[in-house]
Order: sequence, then structure tokens, then C-alpha cells
Amino acid sequence: MENLVEWAFMKSKVSLREFPSAQARREFLEKELNINLHNIGHFTFAEESVAGRNIENLIGATQIPLGVAGPIMNHLIPLATTEGALVASVSRGCKAIMESGGACVEVELVGTTRGPVFKTQGIEHGFKTKNWIEKNFSLIAQTTQKTSSHLKLLKIDSQILSKNLYLRFYYDTGDAMGMNMVTIATDMAVKLIEQKTKARCIALAGNFDIDKKPAYLNFILGRGKKVWAEAVLPKKIVREVLKTTPEKIAEVVEKKCHLGSMMSGSMGFNSHFANIIAAIFAATGQDLAHAAEGSLGITTAEILKNGDLYFTIYLPDLMCGTVGGGTHLPAQQEALKIMNVRNVLEYCRAVGAAILAGELSLIASLAEGSLAKAHQKLGRKNK
Amino acid sequence: MENLVEWAFMKSKVSLREFPSAQARREFLEKELNINLHNIGHFTFAEESVAGRNIENLIGATQIPLGVAGPIMNHLIPLATTEGALVASVSRGCKAIMESGGACVEVELVGTTRGPVFKTQGIEHGFKTKNWIEKNFSLIAQTTQKTSSHLKLLKIDSQILSKNLYLRFYYDTGDAMGMNMVTIATDMAVKLIEQKTKARCIALAGNFDIDKKPAYLNFILGRGKKVWAEAVLPKKIVREVLKTTPEKIAEVVEKKCHLGSMMSGSMGFNSHFANIIAAIFAATGQDLAHAAEGSLGITTAEILKNGDLYFTIYLPDLMCGTVGGGTHLPAQQEALKIMNVRNVLEYCRAVGAAILAGELSLIASLAEGSLAKAHQKLGRKNK
Amino acid sequence: MENLVEWAFMKSKVSLREFPSAQARREFLEKELNINLHNIGHFTFAEESVAGRNIENLIGATQIPLGVAGPIMNHLIPLATTEGALVASVSRGCKAIMESGGACVEVELVGTTRGPVFKTQGIEHGFKTKNWIEKNFSLIAQTTQKTSSHLKLLKIDSQILSKNLYLRFYYDTGDAMGMNMVTIATDMAVKLIEQKTKARCIALAGNFDIDKKPAYLNFILGRGKKVWAEAVLPKKIVREVLKTTPEKIAEVVEKKCHLGSMMSGSMGFNSHFANIIAAIFAATGQDLAHAAEGSLGITTAEILKNGDLYFTIYLPDLMCGTVGGGTHLPAQQEALKIMNVRNVLEYCRAVGAAILAGELSLIASLAEGSLAKAHQKLGRKNK
Amino acid sequence: MENLVEWAFMKSKVSLREFPSAQARREFLEKELNINLHNIGHFTFAEESVAGRNIENLIGATQIPLGVAGPIMNHLIPLATTEGALVASVSRGCKAIMESGGACVEVELVGTTRGPVFKTQGIEHGFKTKNWIEKNFSLIAQTTQKTSSHLKLLKIDSQILSKNLYLRFYYDTGDAMGMNMVTIATDMAVKLIEQKTKARCIALAGNFDIDKKPAYLNFILGRGKKVWAEAVLPKKIVREVLKTTPEKIAEVVEKKCHLGSMMSGSMGFNSHFANIIAAIFAATGQDLAHAAEGSLGITTAEILKNGDLYFTIYLPDLMCGTVGGGTHLPAQQEALKIMNVRNVLEYCRAVGAAILAGELSLIASLAEGSLAKAHQKLGRKNK
Repeated sequence: MENLVEWAFMKSKVSLREFPSAQARREFLEKELNINLHNIGHFTFAEESVAGRNIENLIGATQIPLGVAGPIMNHLIPLATTEGALVASVSRGCKAIMESGGACVEVELVGTTRGPVFKTQGIEHGFKTKNWIEKNFSLIAQTTQKTSSHLKLLKIDSQILSKNLYLRFYYDTGDAMGMNMVTIATDMAVKLIEQKTKARCIALAGNFDIDKKPAYLNFILGRGKKVWAEAVLPKKIVREVLKTTPEKIAEVVEKKCHLGSMMSGSMGFNSHFANIIAAIFAATGQDLAHAAEGSLGITTAEILKNGDLYFTIYLPDLMCGTVGGGTHLPAQQEALKIMNVRNVLEYCRAVGAAILAGELSLIASLAEGSLAKAHQKLGRKNK
Repeated sequence: MENLVEWAFMKSKVSLREFPSAQARREFLEKELNINLHNIGHFTFAEESVAGRNIENLIGATQIPLGVAGPIMNHLIPLATTEGALVASVSRGCKAIMESGGACVEVELVGTTRGPVFKTQGIEHGFKTKNWIEKNFSLIAQTTQKTSSHLKLLKIDSQILSKNLYLRFYYDTGDAMGMNMVTIATDMAVKLIEQKTKARCIALAGNFDIDKKPAYLNFILGRGKKVWAEAVLPKKIVREVLKTTPEKIAEVVEKKCHLGSMMSGSMGFNSHFANIIAAIFAATGQDLAHAAEGSLGITTAEILKNGDLYFTIYLPDLMCGTVGGGTHLPAQQEALKIMNVRNVLEYCRAVGAAILAGELSLIASLAEGSLAKAHQKLGRKNK
Repeated sequence: MENLVEWAFMKSKVSLREFPSAQARREFLEKELNINLHNIGHFTFAEESVAGRNIENLIGATQIPLGVAGPIMNHLIPLATTEGALVASVSRGCKAIMESGGACVEVELVGTTRGPVFKTQGIEHGFKTKNWIEKNFSLIAQTTQKTSSHLKLLKIDSQILSKNLYLRFYYDTGDAMGMNMVTIATDMAVKLIEQKTKARCIALAGNFDIDKKPAYLNFILGRGKKVWAEAVLPKKIVREVLKTTPEKIAEVVEKKCHLGSMMSGSMGFNSHFANIIAAIFAATGQDLAHAAEGSLGITTAEILKNGDLYFTIYLPDLMCGTVGGGTHLPAQQEALKIMNVRNVLEYCRAVGAAILAGELSLIASLAEGSLAKAHQKLGRKNK
Repeated sequence: MENLVEWAFMKSKVSLREFPSAQARREFLEKELNINLHNIGHFTFAEESVAGRNIENLIGATQIPLGVAGPIMNHLIPLATTEGALVASVSRGCKAIMESGGACVEVELVGTTRGPVFKTQGIEHGFKTKNWIEKNFSLIAQTTQKTSSHLKLLKIDSQILSKNLYLRFYYDTGDAMGMNMVTIATDMAVKLIEQKTKARCIALAGNFDIDKKPAYLNFILGRGKKVWAEAVLPKKIVREVLKTTPEKIAEVVEKKCHLGSMMSGSMGFNSHFANIIAAIFAATGQDLAHAAEGSLGITTAEILKNGDLYFTIYLPDLMCGTVGGGTHLPAQQEALKIMNVRNVLEYCRAVGAAILAGELSLIASLAEGSLAKAHQKLGRKNK
């Protein structure tokens, strides 16, 4: 099969985007590469609903197994994953929390950010430009809001470095994750600023947003939504459902999530936020790359005076939506219905509760010493 | 729909894992929640091949649109995504690189890590335990290698903090990503160490691994594989294919990826590694949560004396495999065939080349000022 | 001399604070340890002006060699150091900058911060407490301002984590560095908050300040003062004074200060801010521990179209004062007069200019390849 | 006094280094600036012993008040500081620890590092160069060791990024801090590597050392020496000497040093390492800029089953020496004698014990709520 790929494309000057349909592309690939793409061709969404909107060079669909955990706080948690034990683990955590009377979840809107970088003539001109922007916030806000009735500019942070002026626009984008609309809106603001200040935009996204990268700016100030969740678990339920004790859970949280993460220079002081976020995001049509940001955050535990377990998670940077992006796809729509969420705040609450459950269960498993056992069971099946 | 979820489960004491099949679960959910799960029920993998191995409480599959970018370096790049413009952008980058004579990609095995934390009696006992481990490396290696013929223990790093001894086992796991097998192997090593040293294991995974979190330990020492990719692009091709100049690309790399990321306290000094990794990982059955680690890394650019563009990416922490996990699923197998990779090193090379292409294209788009335009075109379709 | 120390104190139950004077303490130490403290006893400040104010258990003074660099921007730079070549290097940088027409320096007040942490009853109570604080900012400000006429409360940031509410009070403390007065002022605010909200203060300083530690919170939001400095150096002066070229300087800035620091996970993207800050701070009676914060920041360089060098530094976190602390000591007062600064803003400007000069000179030295040569010359003398 | 500085130097073309002595420089400054430098002129070290070795443009000495804390573990702790309460606080901590039976301190040599960066022709050439260096370690070691009989090359780490090859040389420099000698030694190695590999050195210090900046590379792998210290404090002594309880101390450690530092993105998970290090370093002739690295590290606390307090500190990055640098100065020599240390390992042990004491005492003060009270007492005196 050596040089088939190069041969097929480079030498015959064919380009995948010239084919009229996913089927035509599949057939070309099947023939040229001598492979079968039967499973990829098996999908239910309408080709025209995604082509040129969610994807290009469409050839079909990937199928990721979908399981359901929960219920927790009136939500079920759809998880698309290939990591054995994840759904079972989240489910166990949900059970422990619900039998303990449920969780408390709080969500705070920080905003979807876009961060252009401008070139000024020097530090003085940088300050002048910064001042102009601060004084003309209303004008800039109006300009951005003309591009869509679904967004509202909340504030603009700015930092000067050398000839560069970094801005960070924060928007309320309603139920949408909104990167698309804030890009268009910020582009309009950029044009206005260029016109009025003689600063020149180097890049519409200058990493002061900062999008899809783990960053302390987002950890400290938040991005998208901040989410907190907490539950109190009686020691009896910890023992019966989680097979361990509050003390052991608190020990693992401290030694692993706190001290272990410090020793590793980690921005994630948790056990596996990323697992749960990636699986919910895949199931519900979110942008999967935002899992990189969702891995930030802190898990804590405390033994109460009566010996019960107080357990919490904090997510500083949850980027998601219930409209837009991949949420309109039919399987993803069904997953959102399973989740029983009507808007992005409910979605965030469900995610917060699911992460609380998932952290609790994995940490209990580590405390009990059963992690390898679970993997071994799976391991045998893998052979 | 208010309390349907709680009602259905809590009050009737039903648990999803009691149902015999995905269909039975779907039917229950459809009836109780009064929803339709037609699309989720539409999948081609054999239920018994995933249930209890890759997932629990299976109800069907999520379908994520799959596109193909490339070719690049004899690989096509399958991308499962709902983010419009991603496939087109990576394809454009591939075209520019291939017309420039291709890329050079290097891969270095660091190893899959697992990092247990032990409780010792104090700092002195910590040193004794650490010394015992160093002196008995061969014995420990043999113990771990008894659990599987597919892994080899490469080395063990250790750090003492208070009464805690943090270890970091590095394994060569062949073509598998291998978290499952290194968990089982390390569990055996842990039992040996507990027996011989009187240190007690607090958690088999103590975040000194550090798995699925962005961390400087992985950035600095690497995890999984380290990947470097570079290409030289004549200014003519930069102009014709990427619609900009080498100078503008180098400016965006410096002001956005370097200075912008510094100002944000980011571990990702790049533009969108996470996008490409998440989409390839989703298409090929990798663990999606590893996208959090894959977002680490650095993009660089340099103007050569003749005015051409030298462009590189560096990935310190790429966790992936071509066997195990979700790679055996039928659609994922087809994607691996499209990708034309026979082992994990080829897979890493293809990922490195794809990220090089994706970085080049997005940064060119930012340099040219066309990002918002592209989103606007998509934006209209989204309405 | 083995157990002399323990013998002298533990067995005779003597405590240094019981002695009436520095001389008495010295005599005791000289006798018991059989050593001579002649040089430490040689000082000019009045014992009563420091005892119980700047120090306890006073036995005399350390003498640190003091040199002078500059002039730059109408300032001389006093540097107390034992690192050979530092004064000469800063001087050379000053000369290059002054011959190039001087520097532009900007200073922005961020404020001296103090960050108490409170224990609340849970996340909900955390939000209630946070809301009470936001609504009662004026009352809190008045309370703090009663403790001193020299401070003004600027704002309060807050973050909730688990049952903990972290606050960050920002104060304008005039010409004083002010940690002392903001501690007293914040203590009064803490008492008010405890009384009104039922939250309990765990620690008056909860590391959300964050004082004397390198932290991204201070890097991103600033602390004390933010300082920017820039200069344009004609290539002729770079060649004649700095013995290298703008291109080589820009190369070292990129490869060392930017890429090298990224590869090291550093918060300092510079070459030696800490050297210059520590030496000026020692000379002028600042708190030396604040050098840890002063080491944060970024150096940049750019080749202008005409081939000249544009060179800048950015200090996000400069904690210093011209009154209070050790600034009243006689030698330190003389150093402040040499520096020719009348208030803290002028002091910050001088520090900014000195760091610009010091960075320029060391980086030129690295670019030229003369660093080892300079050390070798010193090395011989050290023998 | 407006333009006096510029006038005196720029217009009369005088340079401070032209004067023959510190006295001549002082007299010039006194006359031209119309100030008195009596106190700076008051010093005991021999001018010729520092000029051109430890400093240039010498005009005299800064006097920093010197106090003594301890004893602890057969050491007294000399502290040069102007921060009231610091000596008293460290002393209180020493007392509590000594009455509890003392501390256990461990020191591990990591090595003094120097990190040159080379420019290669590309990634492939980077690997060739890296391989040549690995294969020729003995030759390189011999080359470096020819420059001084006091150093030994321990190992070389390397990282490739784009065309840049970053090296990190680790040396054992005996009782010297050794930056001077490792610079000279590495320069010889660099010349050898340039000759044999055709890679070109961009900078002898490429921030992969990484010197005098807070960096995760040093946090994770260590630099200079790693130091651990621990003590067990009976609750009775905690109550009587520290006026608080083990529980309150453990609470402050967790909420401030751990969670507070996480929320701030700090590399220092402690309360005030920098204070103690800066004061000991100033007293004993160390390089003050290394306080920036010394501020890294972690404080921990644990309540033992019997209710006693187990308390520890960990310093990953302590750069210091007992010969070389400013240690030969007479007042600094006397301070080393007070400290009762005969070599660098004993010095590190004393520093570790002092930091343990200082952390314990400040944290107890925060737990008790007496920090502001102490400052208020000082505050009154400051008026």
C-alpha cells in the first residue's frame, strides 16, 4: 500500500473537495486505497445539513459508543467514550450523591472571549490606544452587537507588551458556545479600532482569548462559565456505595489531586475532569478541542465533624452551548434530550454534577485500591 | 418534562445496567422521557464487542461527521469534527507543504507513564524506600513484565514530599496507548514495593503520571511520544496557496503563539493543536481526554535568508495507539486505513504532519485577516 | 566547635532577646562561640532606630559592597551586590541607551494587595458572603481607611473554592510599599466581614495576595506597579558600545528569553531581572524577598526597518517604596539620594530604566560570546 | 536637583570607573549632587578585595541590620533584614522545634546548571548533534574539568525545539555556588561542540539552566540542592510556644499554602520561604538574585493520630555556597561562623531548618490571628 496515497492524489491532481458527495469521496477512496468504508458510510444526518457548515470533504461519520450515567439532579448524563469503566464509574458516583440527598451546583457566566492583538507604534501609542478603547466602550459594544442579536459585549481587558496591545473581549452569547459569532463581532470592533487609533491588527485571535489551550489566564479569571458543585456524603453511603471511607477519599484528594499535581506543575488539580468533559462533549455536539480547557480545575474533600464527607469540584473554564456548532445533529439532539437540559445554564449544571460524580467515584476507587482490578477485568476482555 | 428523570429512576428503582441490551435501554428511555432515539440507535459495531470493554450502559452511538484532509507525507488525515473550516484549513496546509516538497517529522518514544504515590513514615523512610526501588529496578521490571508480553518498563523517576513518595513508571507499550496495561503492571509493582519496604500505596495514580491534565512535568520531560515536524515553504507558495507572506506568518507566530501565550500564562504556545488532535483522535478511536495533553506544545517560524519560510511544531506529549482502546471499532478501523498507518510511530508521524499543516493554515488565515470572513460564510449557513 | 551552639543556648537557657544591646549580644556570641564579630559591629545607624521596628536580636550590620551605574534618564543606579560584572554591565547598557537618546518608561499603579481567606458554610454561603462584600464596598473601604490616612482601598477581587472565599484587596499606599499598613487595614475589614456575614477568617494572608511568591495571578493582573520601558538603539551604537549587532541581540532574546523560558516552564521571560532588582532593593532599603516577584516579566527585541534595534522590558509586579521599611536607614537614604528619586513613581521609572539597561547589556554580552571571558577575568581574581 | 545627574556625567563626559577609589567616587558624587555619603563610606572590607571581583564603580557599602535567630540543630541563623518581626518569628519557630526534639533535614545534590542554546540546521541536524553529545560525554566532561579542579560534570540534559538545541549541564561545584566556574567550563564545552558538530552557539546561557528565574524545570528536576526538613510538634508545645493548635496550623497550610497558591497560579506553595532565604543570603554573601529560585517549594502539615503536628518543608532549588562570591567578605565570614557551618551541605541543612522554623511560626501567627497585631505594634513605631 506504500505510495498509494501520494499516487492517488498528487499524481492524478485530484482533490477531495471536487467530489459532489460523501458517497463519491468514499468510493474514490475505496477504489484507490483498496479499502472498505462501509461503517463510515452508515450515518443518519442529512449530508446537506453539515457540509460546508460543520465540516468539509465529508465522507461519512465516526460512530462512538454512547452510554448513559445517572440520574443526578434530574439529569441523565450521555457519555460517548471508548474508555471502559467510565460510564459505570460516573454512574456509581451519581448513585452515591443521589442517595446522600443530591448536590448543590452553581454556575457563573464569565463570557466567551476573543482576543485580538494590535501593533502600535510603541508603549506611549499603546497607552493612547488602550485609553481610546476604554473611553469608547459603548461605541465598540454597539458595533459588535450589530453583527448578531444573540450576543452582548460585557467588557474588554487589555495588556500592553512592547508594541503589542492585547485585548480580551468578553461576550454573553446566550445558549450558544459562540466562538463563531464572537469572531465575527470582534472583527467588526477591530476594524473600528484600526480606523480610529491607527493601531494595526496583527491577528484577530492573539492568544489572549485564550482559546483551546490550558492557560492560567482562564484558570484565574475564568472563561465561558465557572461551575462549582458540592455534596455531603454520609460515611455509611461512602462505605456501602463507594466501598471506602471519607478519610481515605480525603487522603487521596490531598496526596494526588493537590500535592501530586503541585509536584507535576499541573493546571489540573483533579483526578479526571477531562474524561467526563470529553465524553459529554462528544455526545452532545460540543467542540471537542474545548476539553483542553475543561481539564483545568480543582477537586476538594473535607471530613465533617460528624465524620461525613464534604466533596466539591470547581471548573473555572467550561466552554459549551446548547445551540449552534454540532448540537443540531440528530444523535446529538437526542443526547441533549436524554440529558434533560433546556438551556446552557442547565447544561453546565448537569456537567458540574457529572464531574462531581465522576471525581468522587474514581477517587473512591483509587482509595479502595480497586482501579487495577477494574482494568484487569477489562484487560482480559481486550485480549 | 420537569421531574421525569428522577421519577423514572429514583422512584421506580430502575437501573440502566439491569437492561439486557442497548435497544432495551433506548426503549425504556424513549418511553419514560417521551423522546425518540432513532439516530442514536443507528450504528454498525457489534454490541458485544464494546459492552463491558469500551463502555457500560450502552444505548447506541454518537455520529460525528467525518472529513478527510491531505494527503501529506503519504498519509490522509481523517478528522471527526463539527467545527466548520477545520478540514478545509488542514487540507490547505497540507497542499502548501506538499507543493513545497513535504515535511520532515521526527518521533521519540518517551513512554506511557503511571505514577503511584506511597505513604512512608517520614523523610528518612522515604529515602530508604526510594533507594530500595533504585537498587531493585530489575526485580520491579520483571514483576511488571509478567503482567503482559506487550510492555517493557523503561525507568522509574521518584520525588519525595513530606511523607509521600511519588513514583513515575515509564513503559514502552508497543503500538498500544497502553494506560490499561500499565495500570495493571504498576499495580503488581506497587504490591512488591509495599511488601519489601513497608511503604503503603495511597493511590495507584498519584498525579505524578500525570494523566489527562496539562502539566509542566509532561511538557518538560515528555509523555507518550515527543513529535517534531518542520517544513520549508518558498515565499511563492506562501503567497499563492496561503494568500499571505512569510513575514506576516512569522509575525503572527511571535505575537500570538509566543508573546500572547506568555501574557496568558499558557502551556500551549501554539494556535490550535487541540483542534486537530481532538478531531484525529475522535476519528481513530483514541482516548479523547488525551486531547488535554496534546494541546501542549510550541509552534515556531523563521524567515530564511532567501525569504522562504521555515515553519515547525513541537508536541511534547502525544498519547495514542493503533491497537487497543477504541481503535478496534469498525468505523475507526476504516479511518486508520484511510490514514495509511501500520503502527504507532507512523500514526504519530501523520499526526505531527497534520498539526504542522493545521497550524500553518490557521496562522496564515490570521495573518491574512480572513478568519472572520471564513466564519461569516459559515455563520450565514448556521442561521 | 561541635556542640557549642546548643550548649550555649539550650543548656544555659539563655535567649538572645534578653540582652540589652547589639554589643552585649555580640560579646556573648564572641565568647561562647570563640569567634570575632568586629566587622558586624561596625555600623552607623542608631540602634534604637531599628530595634523592634526593622529587626529583633540585633547584633550589628551586614556590609554589602555598593557600586553605582548610570546615569540613565537623570538617575544614577545604586547597586549593592557581590556579583562581579553586574555594575559594569548595567553601566554599559545605560551608556548605550543614553547615547541613543534615552528610554521611554511608563508606570501603572496596580496596588499593594492583601488576600485573606474565609471559611464559609458552603458554596451558597460563599456566594452570599461575596455578594455582601460587593454591595458593601464603600463601608469596607471606609473601615480600612480609618487605620491610616496614607492608604486608599481601590478594589476587592474574590474567588470561591469549596468552602473557602478568597479575597484580594488592592490599596494605593502612596510612596510606601505598604505591606505593613495594608495588613492592619485588611485586618479591620476582616473583622467587619466576620461580624456581618458569619464567614470566619482562616488566615489574614491566604496566598491570593500573593506576596513574595512567583505567581501567574501577579503576572497577569499585576501587583504593586507595572512598569514598561523601551529604547531605540541605532545599529552604530549597538556595534560600538555593545560590540554586537541588533540581529544577534534579537536572536538571543527570542531563543533564550522566549523559547528557552518556554522550554523551562519559566515565569521569567527575561535574562536577569532578578539581579538588578535584588541589587537596587538591597541598596535602597526595600524588602529583599520581593525580588522573587520582581523576577517575573518579559524582554522583547525587534529589528526596525532601518536596521536599528527596538528593545523593551515589561515588569508586571514591582513591589517597592521610598518611605517606610528599610528606606529610613542612613546608608539607604544616601542611596535614594544618589538615585535622585523623590517619590515611588520616579523610583519605579529608575528601576525600569536600569532593568532595560541591564537586560540590553547582558544579552549583548551573550550575543557577542563574551560572557565567559568576563567571568574568566573575574575567576582569576577569585583565586 | 533637577538635571544635576545628567549634567554631571553627560556634559562633563566623566565616567565613574575612571576614578581611582571608592572615596574619590564618593567625593565626586557628594560635590556634584550636593549630598552627603558618610554612612555609605563607613565599611571595613578592603577595597582591593572586592573591586573588580565582586563589584565595579565601588563607592562604599550598604549596611543592612543583622539579627540572629535560633539556635536550631546546632546552628544559629544570621538574618540581614529590615522587615520587623522576621527574626523574632524565626526564633519562635526554632524554639518550638528544639523543645519538640529537633528537626530532621535531608539535602540532595542536584548540581549547578548552565544551559547553552545552539542553532542547528534543522531537526535532523539537531538530533545528530544531540547524539554526538551523548556519545562524547566523557570527552566533554574532561574538557570542562580542565578549567577547574573544583568542578565535576555530572550529566547533560537536552531538548530540541525547531533549529534550537537546548542543553543543561549539571555540575558538582563542591562548596561553591559555582555559577562563575560553570560558565567558564561550559564555554569550553561549547567550543568543543561547535568544532565537532557544526552547530553554532547562540547564547552560553539559553534559559534552560534556568538561572535566577522561577521555573517549573527547576521545581520538577531541582537545581543546586534539594532540601527537605520535618519536625513533630506535640500539641502542648504548639499551644504554649505557638499559641495555637495543630488543627489550626494544618488548616492554614491547606487553605493558604495549597489551595490559595493553586488559585493564584503560584510556583510557591508556602507562606514565606523568600523572606528567610533573602535574609540568610544577604547575611552570608550569597547571590541575592537566587532568592527568586529559593521562593519555590512546598510546606505541608499533618495531624498525627495522637494529635501532634507533623510539619515539613521542601525546597527544590537552593543555590548557595560557603566559598566564592561574597562569602569571603569579613562581615559575611563572621555570619558564617555564627551559623556554625563548615561546608555547603551543613549550610543547606541550616537553611532548611531555618525555613522550617520560619514557616511554622508565621503560619501559627496567621492561625492565631495575631499577624496584624504584630504589625500594628511595629506600625506605631514606624510613625
